[in-house]
Amino acid sequence: MAQRDPRVQLLLTGNEIMSGDTVDSNSALIARRLAEIAITVYRKVTVGDDNALLQAELAQMAANADIVIINGGLGPTVDDLTAQVLATVAGVPLSEHPQALAHLEQWCATRNLPLNAANRKQALLPEGARVIANPVGSAVGFELALGGCRVLCTPGVPGELDAMLDGIVADLGHSLARPAGRRILRLQTFGLGESSAQQLISDALPQWPPQVELGFRAGAPQMEIKLSIADSDFLPLQQQCHRQLLELFGDHVIGEGDTQLAQRVLELLQQRGKTLTTAESCTGGLIASMLTRVPGSSEAFHAGFVTYANDIKTSVLGVLPGTLARHGAVSEEVVREMALGALQRAGADYAIAVSGIAGPEGGSPGKPVGTVWLAWGEAHALQTRCLCWPVERSLFQTMVAAAGLDLIRRALLGLTTEPRYFSQRRAR
Amino acid sequence: MAQRDPRVQLLLTGNEIMSGDTVDSNSALIARRLAEIAITVYRKVTVGDDNALLQAELAQMAANADIVIINGGLGPTVDDLTAQVLATVAGVPLSEHPQALAHLEQWCATRNLPLNAANRKQALLPEGARVIANPVGSAVGFELALGGCRVLCTPGVPGELDAMLDGIVADLGHSLARPAGRRILRLQTFGLGESSAQQLISDALPQWPPQVELGFRAGAPQMEIKLSIADSDFLPLQQQCHRQLLELFGDHVIGEGDTQLAQRVLELLQQRGKTLTTAESCTGGLIASMLTRVPGSSEAFHAGFVTYANDIKTSVLGVLPGTLARHGAVSEEVVREMALGALQRAGADYAIAVSGIAGPEGGSPGKPVGTVWLAWGEAHALQTRCLCWPVERSLFQTMVAAAGLDLIRRALLGLTTEPRYFSQRRAR
Repeated sequence: MAQRDPRVQLLLTGNEIMSGDTVDSNSALIARRLAEIAITVYRKVTVGDDNALLQAELAQMAANADIVIINGGLGPTVDDLTAQVLATVAGVPLSEHPQALAHLEQWCATRNLPLNAANRKQALLPEGARVIANPVGSAVGFELALGGCRVLCTPGVPGELDAMLDGIVADLGHSLARPAGRRILRLQTFGLGESSAQQLISDALPQWPPQVELGFRAGAPQMEIKLSIADSDFLPLQQQCHRQLLELFGDHVIGEGDTQLAQRVLELLQQRGKTLTTAESCTGGLIASMLTRVPGSSEAFHAGFVTYANDIKTSVLGVLPGTLARHGAVSEEVVREMALGALQRAGADYAIAVSGIAGPEGGSPGKPVGTVWLAWGEAHALQTRCLCWPVERSLFQTMVAAAGLDLIRRALLGLTTEPRYFSQRRAR
Repeated sequence: MAQRDPRVQLLLTGNEIMSGDTVDSNSALIARRLAEIAITVYRKVTVGDDNALLQAELAQMAANADIVIINGGLGPTVDDLTAQVLATVAGVPLSEHPQALAHLEQWCATRNLPLNAANRKQALLPEGARVIANPVGSAVGFELALGGCRVLCTPGVPGELDAMLDGIVADLGHSLARPAGRRILRLQTFGLGESSAQQLISDALPQWPPQVELGFRAGAPQMEIKLSIADSDFLPLQQQCHRQLLELFGDHVIGEGDTQLAQRVLELLQQRGKTLTTAESCTGGLIASMLTRVPGSSEAFHAGFVTYANDIKTSVLGVLPGTLARHGAVSEEVVREMALGALQRAGADYAIAVSGIAGPEGGSPGKPVGTVWLAWGEAHALQTRCLCWPVERSLFQTMVAAAGLDLIRRALLGLTTEPRYFSQRRAR
């Protein structure tokens, strides 16, 4: 059981990462996925697409690590050097790997593409390498031993890396025969900030057990809270902390694992046999898009309306010209009429309507950039609210769209308590 | 003039970066800022907040670089080790630096905060260090020489780093007396893959000049091609390569710099005083959302329709029930009627309509997952096409939405040549 922890290093390659044109999020993803099987990355090195530099780093790393994961450089272009570098350091030739070639051929066939020479380069692997399946991309990953060190080569395209890591994590978890790994429990929340969540926990739960490590990952729009323990002996403690957090954060918790707001809303709608429609001005289709990203969303979402201009609010949703003239497009009366119009047009049970000022232009002293009116719910029980998110346009749209979905979630669950963002994002 | 390029390395410290809880964007910022003065970072190493690891990395780096920039570890807590590590490697003691202390005192006074012991720790610098001003935070940066290497220590808080880099870039630019920097020219393309672009260039331009470095960044949906040269002497060569690429890739080039498809489409619409509307089934609002992300989009985009269900296609866009019954929702006839209905409802000049099978469910032998019909253009000159993108749901939506925008771009430009994806993504 008291097996030594494997020493794991990452080698990242890519001129676009060195130049800062791309922010590397892959190494964070790798670290998080390895943490699931209690493996810690203790060092990472990044260099550009340079043969000599890559060879020197790899040779040094392999001499000091049990596992090296290389990320990037698997593509078809001349600046993709990983296979060649690994072959050189290992002192073996490159040769066309039948399994990699078969994968490429199938990949091209499915897409009706010719297998050209540049693509075919991706089947050239160091002799003796084991193929690691790439479920979504053209270039397979591969593994080769350098002395006592396992070198795993993975693609730089984030979606491909993500898909490949499932296999790698399963394989490493199995082959390293780790003692029962780190148990991680994740909660998805909306409407909580990192520092306020931390403060709430410190204040309310001063006796937090040290065995249950607490982590926060603030994304836009959701924040993830992670409860992590090193040993399964502490599972009851983890469960207890989980219950305490649910009590503390209440209905700001959307769900466990990777639950996304749109997914949760669709699930609740389907359970109740209800449908939802959207009437969007400032979010411009983003709420509809978040919903329809979810497979199977067509069951509960049939229609959405992007009514950006005033005359469209009238012609498509039946908002009265007089209402627009008297109150302006960003007003309680207009979002109410938008929601009712959308409900009628779509024949839906629930609606969410938003109208606001996304900026950077269009603000006024009375209605500054960031102001937004929302209306949501069923026709006979429509609720409205004015909030203010004075942030950059795209983040404003993301947060407002998520708030709309969150308010529908709350309505579907029959929650009556106010979310924290009602007071924190109150329009002045 | 032919001064040797300074060798610059970055040393990043922080447990939250190693664990993947935080994605490091600081190193990208540093690289981009240094590129302004033609300085290239060629290697970066990241380790956790560990005294021994940091000392070993720093000693090795300083022996192989002219400039080392350390980022992180300047804060008030016990895991902030940078000053101590640098002092140890330099063999000097830590001592309270009057200038750093004065900065701290003023920082606290402005904020009406007491100067506590934890904060005061931030005035302890390696003896002989030069202070680098921190215009926004409590901890100053500092510089010390290790042999022939300049070591610059910077804060991990992104806003503080950003503010401090102004001074650092000005100082390095001045003290290194650099010649004019690397000239970078970027082209944004849609409808080209990395491998086909590489293949086309290798085939058509075998005499590519080695002074003009070529880079590709495949994103979804666009691909960027970067032409980079080290010396302004080669600007004419770069221009020549640029012209050759435009000739080679023709109308697959959307624009230069950071140009996004939606932005380009809106620009073309505005130049012509025209408006666009969207009728989306399988993309579910994504096209509208891409358009409305762009500030000022309301000028040319007034209305969008998400008609996910068949009866909504009829009630909202006037698609005839008979057309749906005879041809199915994913058909040329239906997207044509969707486009015409949207044009009429929105009173717009141009429309894009899409109906397809995003999957993972809903495919059939005749219309497999990935099949999509598009209709686009003006009412009197509507074009239609069936394509097939058999990829994961969310990527399918992204690529189809972008194709829709690209087809409008082509229509607005009056282009008559077919894009490559018409043949490569042809539905069978």
